[in-house]
Amino acid sequence: MCPSKVAEGGQRGWIVPIGGAEDKENDKRVLRRFLELCGGDGAEIAVIPTASRLNETGDRYEQIFGGMGARNVHVLDFDTRRDAHERNRVARIEQASGIFITGGNQLRLSTILGGTPVAQAIRACNAHGIPVGGTSAGAGILSEHMIAGGDSETETPRANGVRLAPGLGLTNRVVIDQHFRQRDRLGRLLAALAYNPFAIGLGVDEDTAAFIGPDNVVEVEGSGAVTVVDADGLQFSSMAQVDGDSPVCMLGVQLHILTAGASYNLVTRKASAGELSTVKE
Amino acid sequence: MCPSKVAEGGQRGWIVPIGGAEDKENDKRVLRRFLELCGGDGAEIAVIPTASRLNETGDRYEQIFGGMGARNVHVLDFDTRRDAHERNRVARIEQASGIFITGGNQLRLSTILGGTPVAQAIRACNAHGIPVGGTSAGAGILSEHMIAGGDSETETPRANGVRLAPGLGLTNRVVIDQHFRQRDRLGRLLAALAYNPFAIGLGVDEDTAAFIGPDNVVEVEGSGAVTVVDADGLQFSSMAQVDGDSPVCMLGVQLHILTAGASYNLVTRKASAGELSTVKE
Repeated sequence: MCPSKVAEGGQRGWIVPIGGAEDKENDKRVLRRFLELCGGDGAEIAVIPTASRLNETGDRYEQIFGGMGARNVHVLDFDTRRDAHERNRVARIEQASGIFITGGNQLRLSTILGGTPVAQAIRACNAHGIPVGGTSAGAGILSEHMIAGGDSETETPRANGVRLAPGLGLTNRVVIDQHFRQRDRLGRLLAALAYNPFAIGLGVDEDTAAFIGPDNVVEVEGSGAVTVVDADGLQFSSMAQVDGDSPVCMLGVQLHILTAGASYNLVTRKASAGELSTVKE
Repeated sequence: MCPSKVAEGGQRGWIVPIGGAEDKENDKRVLRRFLELCGGDGAEIAVIPTASRLNETGDRYEQIFGGMGARNVHVLDFDTRRDAHERNRVARIEQASGIFITGGNQLRLSTILGGTPVAQAIRACNAHGIPVGGTSAGAGILSEHMIAGGDSETETPRANGVRLAPGLGLTNRVVIDQHFRQRDRLGRLLAALAYNPFAIGLGVDEDTAAFIGPDNVVEVEGSGAVTVVDADGLQFSSMAQVDGDSPVCMLGVQLHILTAGASYNLVTRKASAGELSTVKE
């Protein structure tokens, strides 16, 4: 699935994958910045808690966004593919000034929402400038190529170390992995890129987000880091020659660890320390 | 401590860090190749089990190297710094055609052997062409800057994520970390390089070795991978600005994952897929 077409003269909305476990009690840096992009106290947020099997997940985000001043928060759950065709709920999404997808199981998101009017509405909204954010599973689903499963706790990529599936396809420039540092997922992100290095890997730590702007510059917010894995200069990948648990040989991968304030341009593939490089000692 | 001076016209011996848990029962690829470098059936191996508190560690390697055909294997344990001054034991090291340091606690190696005639003998032997190998703690001690401790299970480097100590100093070109994939140590290896990017990080998986030749080309043997972390092109490190648990921003790190057959030149900093690139499908 390719990203929805952006109208001439228009701009795609922000895409905001969050690594999970974002702060919900204290300064709420990540969620606060997302809310600001959605219009702050004028925001109409649609929350999609479909990935989660916990009844309280949607209500929790309703309280958090409401507590930070959003004008309206609508929790829209979809338990079946039929739900995802219901006209009233689709209309709620179309009227939102921001869409937020909670964590849980990303295969619930892809199997229930994939190809439905809800998925089409999310894509169309984003193409028309509406910010779409997601945390944990809700982050993974945002891109075209989604990590559906694979190894955690390993840094060496292995032949069968990752399973990919189609996601919502808001962008095809990145493959997103979440809980990155906490679950040690570099190996599976590398394995995903070893198949086809055209995309850029974004490994997002917990309580951290990659704010992907309409200009395709990634800005980092939160207490952790976003690890950018750029395989554009890859000299060699042995992915075609190995199988099973065998490690994959990959030569020439570029790595950037971005903390809050740093940025990365997905078009030019250049990292910038931004304000960090001018911090006074 | 700088590497011992190699005599004019002479060649340094191989330096062989092994990531721990190398195969000792089946094909013994890693230990077999090490033994070959030491002279095969003419080899006189000195085994130093000082890192380990288990009495059987030395005997185990004596049996393994003996079973593979080494002419002589001498287990030389050092429990105190005084032991490491004993003339007879030092002479055993000086007569060896290969020196092998077992796993355990690398601070036992550095505190008991550091600066003693044993350490001097190991350095001098290596400078005169004798191969020196070590597994796990015995791998970490080989280089000048040794990782003495720090975070495991994290991929994001953190300000206090690594503690360095002086090692045996056979080479100052690399910083070695072991059990690399199994204990998820990219974060601490990156943190070590964030202090000063001059060295090259070698993250060695279990049952895998980096055979560092006299020409400073690293060849990989074993069932896992060696992750080469090259920070030579580092654009920015925030290590001077952060502290505690804060993640470190690092832009422009080069990563190569080498499997058996691939190599990396520590001088030119170029990776090669070697025979892997010509494997028939």
